[in-house]
Amino acid sequence: MKIAIVAPLWERVPPKGYGGIELIVKLLTDELVRRGHDVTLFASGDSITAAKLKTVHPQALRLDPNIKEPGIYEHMLLADVFQHAHHFDVIHSHFGYQALSYSSFVKTPTVHTLHGAFSEENEKIYRRFAWQKFISISFSQREPRLGLNYIHTVYNGIDTSVYAFNSEPVQPPLLAFVGRISPEKGPVEAIKIARATGLPLKMAGKIDVVDKDFYTEQVEPLIDGEQIQFLGEVSHEEKVKLLSEASVTLFPINWREPFGLVMIESMATGTPVVAMGLGSVPEVIAHDKTGYVCHSLEAMIEMVPYAMKLDRHTCREYVVNRFSVESMASEYERAYSMVMGNG
Amino acid sequence: MKIAIVAPLWERVPPKGYGGIELIVKLLTDELVRRGHDVTLFASGDSITAAKLKTVHPQALRLDPNIKEPGIYEHMLLADVFQHAHHFDVIHSHFGYQALSYSSFVKTPTVHTLHGAFSEENEKIYRRFAWQKFISISFSQREPRLGLNYIHTVYNGIDTSVYAFNSEPVQPPLLAFVGRISPEKGPVEAIKIARATGLPLKMAGKIDVVDKDFYTEQVEPLIDGEQIQFLGEVSHEEKVKLLSEASVTLFPINWREPFGLVMIESMATGTPVVAMGLGSVPEVIAHDKTGYVCHSLEAMIEMVPYAMKLDRHTCREYVVNRFSVESMASEYERAYSMVMGNG
Repeated sequence: MKIAIVAPLWERVPPKGYGGIELIVKLLTDELVRRGHDVTLFASGDSITAAKLKTVHPQALRLDPNIKEPGIYEHMLLADVFQHAHHFDVIHSHFGYQALSYSSFVKTPTVHTLHGAFSEENEKIYRRFAWQKFISISFSQREPRLGLNYIHTVYNGIDTSVYAFNSEPVQPPLLAFVGRISPEKGPVEAIKIARATGLPLKMAGKIDVVDKDFYTEQVEPLIDGEQIQFLGEVSHEEKVKLLSEASVTLFPINWREPFGLVMIESMATGTPVVAMGLGSVPEVIAHDKTGYVCHSLEAMIEMVPYAMKLDRHTCREYVVNRFSVESMASEYERAYSMVMGNG
Repeated sequence: MKIAIVAPLWERVPPKGYGGIELIVKLLTDELVRRGHDVTLFASGDSITAAKLKTVHPQALRLDPNIKEPGIYEHMLLADVFQHAHHFDVIHSHFGYQALSYSSFVKTPTVHTLHGAFSEENEKIYRRFAWQKFISISFSQREPRLGLNYIHTVYNGIDTSVYAFNSEPVQPPLLAFVGRISPEKGPVEAIKIARATGLPLKMAGKIDVVDKDFYTEQVEPLIDGEQIQFLGEVSHEEKVKLLSEASVTLFPINWREPFGLVMIESMATGTPVVAMGLGSVPEVIAHDKTGYVCHSLEAMIEMVPYAMKLDRHTCREYVVNRFSVESMASEYERAYSMVMGNG
């Protein structure tokens, strides 16, 4: 197939640091090329890809201090994509709402992967273009029901080869928390669970500017450097080490996260996850097999010892079968065939 | 003709306060309706127009505190315009660069009026769409030469009926300055001219937040409340009173202004203008008839007494013939005919 993949311009593909969308785009694009498709990636000019790269600016917009009007580059990129629509069998946009109106002008089938949550504002434009073809990254993401034309759900996948399996977690047992230090990710709840169970907890994650006060006022006072340790923002290797050495990873979110990548990263290393059952959590964890889906802090505390007894090989296999790059690419191939009228 | 006029969403048509583009759109649209055209105005929902109004939001975006992503509304509006392109004989955009890529998807001829100056960033997208059909609001606006496909120049027009002619300026003679109190408009230079000529100067204009320090440090210390008076931001009536009572209006700009509306407002009341010859100034002033086009502060000082002797009726007639709503609308009608292939 001739496939156009459209990435946001704000961050490079793959991202230099944090950047969930750009990482997924990188993995998917390279895998589609490996499978023999003719793939063109529209992204920032410093992107690294096995596909043909088309761009309108040599750098990720985030990194260029001269960028004052990102909209200029967005319009130029989308014009490049959709004015050349007839060159492609299918266009796959990860760009966001900006691509909706553009794709309404062309005949080439376009699928839009939704990566974020809906907001009161962007709901309006999604409703306006509800007849377009959408792919959700979890079924829970489809709330609130806006009447969008969802054609498929494709879970995010990871490159399981860079998440080494570990059958022997460290002793004494360790709890892990990986994620932004923000209220919705639940770092305070993670600490409460550690204290209630008496187990040590290592936490890793970046602190955004908007969350600085939250960290200083509510999280930092609880970090004693012994039972509760905070590692700050860590590299991929350090993250994998932390997740794989832990006996249980905690995912005590306070919001309906459309897809929690940390859960599959943890399970890929063999470590089960005890999570709050919001958003995509019930879809990502196999309850009582790869972790526990809980509905209160008390339940999470109660399930930690049970999670420690789950089979680590099962966790690994579950991710390889369901949340690998290969399974993600296969599901996207199915979606492309569907919209091309062959599905 | 069936005409679509596209206005920015940030401010109402007509603007509640400052808003040059929205004022021009208001005057042009109503005049085109008066001439029997079938006009649809795409603008904010609180706009007031004789045309059919289409919108995506009930309020000017500037006035709605809930607006966090203006791009959402821009894309919705432009999609509404260009998805209905086949309903119109011509589309006339005052929206800016965002409309360039959209208009490239439709067959209905689209003309883009440029209202601002080019920036290092927006030059890129104008070059990308250089083949589209552009209308400049002065010939000087076409600098820097980007190779754009200019089909016409249409000067801005005013409703001359709301600028009462006055044959008798106040005595002793008064100088006027009307404009934002910012370095590029030259308020300090206006004061220097007043001091050098010994004439009283009344100044009116708003002070933007970014210009607060400039005002406090460089302008305010020169205002003595006697020879040099500052009236602050004034109403339309107060502005007309000031311009019409003056013997000469000063326009000592320091930048290449694409079109200086104050010059025609002043001449409409009968008051000649002494201006720095940058940007559109040589196109707007009839040198030695309705004012003087100068190339230094010294020359401006020297020409003030000569300007006081120019015929005020000539100034008025010059604006009525060249810079009225009627002449603007006639020139736009010509441009529409040209792009429809009848010109």
